Amino acid sequence: MKKIGVIGGLGWPSTIDYYRLLCQKTNAYFADQGLPKPLPAPPIVLESLDMSVTRKLRGTAGDDASWQGFESVFRQCFQRLRDAGAEFGLIASNTPHARLKGIVRGLDLPVLSILDATAQAVCRLGARRVLVLGTTVTMHSTMYPEVLAAQGVETVPKLPDAEIAALGRIIDEDLYQGAVGDADQFILTLCARYAGADDVVCLGCTELSLAFPEHQDDESFVCEGISFLNTTVAHVEAALVKSGIPVRR
Amino acid sequence: MKKIGVIGGLGWPSTIDYYRLLCQKTNAYFADQGLPKPLPAPPIVLESLDMSVTRKLRGTAGDDASWQGFESVFRQCFQRLRDAGAEFGLIASNTPHARLKGIVRGLDLPVLSILDATAQAVCRLGARRVLVLGTTVTMHSTMYPEVLAAQGVETVPKLPDAEIAALGRIIDEDLYQGAVGDADQFILTLCARYAGADDVVCLGCTELSLAFPEHQDDESFVCEGISFLNTTVAHVEAALVKSGIPVRR
Repeated sequence: MKKIGVIGGLGWPSTIDYYRLLCQKTNAYFADQGLPKPLPAPPIVLESLDMSVTRKLRGTAGDDASWQGFESVFRQCFQRLRDAGAEFGLIASNTPHARLKGIVRGLDLPVLSILDATAQAVCRLGARRVLVLGTTVTMHSTMYPEVLAAQGVETVPKLPDAEIAALGRIIDEDLYQGAVGDADQFILTLCARYAGADDVVCLGCTELSLAFPEHQDDESFVCEGISFLNTTVAHVEAALVKSGIPVRR
Repeated sequence: MKKIGVIGGLGWPSTIDYYRLLCQKTNAYFADQGLPKPLPAPPIVLESLDMSVTRKLRGTAGDDASWQGFESVFRQCFQRLRDAGAEFGLIASNTPHARLKGIVRGLDLPVLSILDATAQAVCRLGARRVLVLGTTVTMHSTMYPEVLAAQGVETVPKLPDAEIAALGRIIDEDLYQGAVGDADQFILTLCARYAGADDVVCLGCTELSLAFPEHQDDESFVCEGISFLNTTVAHVEAALVKSGIPVRR
């Protein structure tokens, strides 16, 4: 298997989800091959950044130069992971992907984007239109609309600022500290308001799938009649394929 | 905080426990200080080794030279973690500590031993005698008896080989793959057979505390009248103190 370099900590609860899924799915693959226990686990090097630091480095929308400090922290982290033997990298979080182009500039490590992994999963589901839910940065960014449009998939127009802010508070106050609270109910209410009957709801923050613990291992699932896409699982499965482990879909 | 270098994957379920505890206890400390959310998390660089590989590198008891390949894999991993900025290291597992002296030979990174962290926790509990439970390597090694004797603490004489082998099978077959099964009942039966009324039982394999999920956050706990010591929590709390976070005991 290729060694996987992971930038984690953004937040730590979903980093655990990535690590667990990478290990469990690798174990499962080798169990199917009849290998003895303890089963092989994937080679991973992971650096956990501190969100309370990276957040202060955020720049201003529309001002690329203001994001240089933020991008540089991620680029340097990928360089350390590469020096530690990582053969490709991933960021275990959606939000920093808004700056992925700047992060990978001049970097000699391939980085597997959660946006691409999610867009491929959306296509597998045959979705025509997607409601993306995520942090305030993700909701105000064009990153998902652009990558989905390239696949011929529409996105639901931007939600009202008050809804985006309320979702951001739930992510910041509860999910990033490992508490689930009523996040699932809030998400389901948003979906009832803004998702059409045939839309797929993309949980475009890796913490959001933690609000549906019974579906934490499912790339897609239906809850109260709504079709969800779990971006953590989509990203992990793409990473396993890139690492050399065929994933059952 | 000092950056913590963790060798994980041995096995991956307890690596998750280490990472979660490091992050949750750091979050809790900064919440007490009144810091805003998302709360600061610790700087961690973690490399996850594959136990199905390291196990094949094990040498023979009493033949130091035969362990060179095993020790070298851990030493090189610590060197990569140091190069990635780790200011001290730890192995998120008891078993490789049987070879810790060889692993750290020539290494310019301080390593925080789970044996020392556990011996200090045993002293805090005021224990006079300890029953150590762990993998077959740990149960046949003198590492715990030696470090405890240095603190004036006795250890229960070595268990019969058949009991050691049965415990080893539960760790290999279930716990290392993230399954708990009846591990708690097996451990409680062993304790009833071999631990005296005043003995403390040291869960000297970081996977064993996963068999008591309601006590996963407790350095020590009582279950069915037996006093247990959770070596994962003892090690994590010592790491946090070394990193600069005072831990409430």
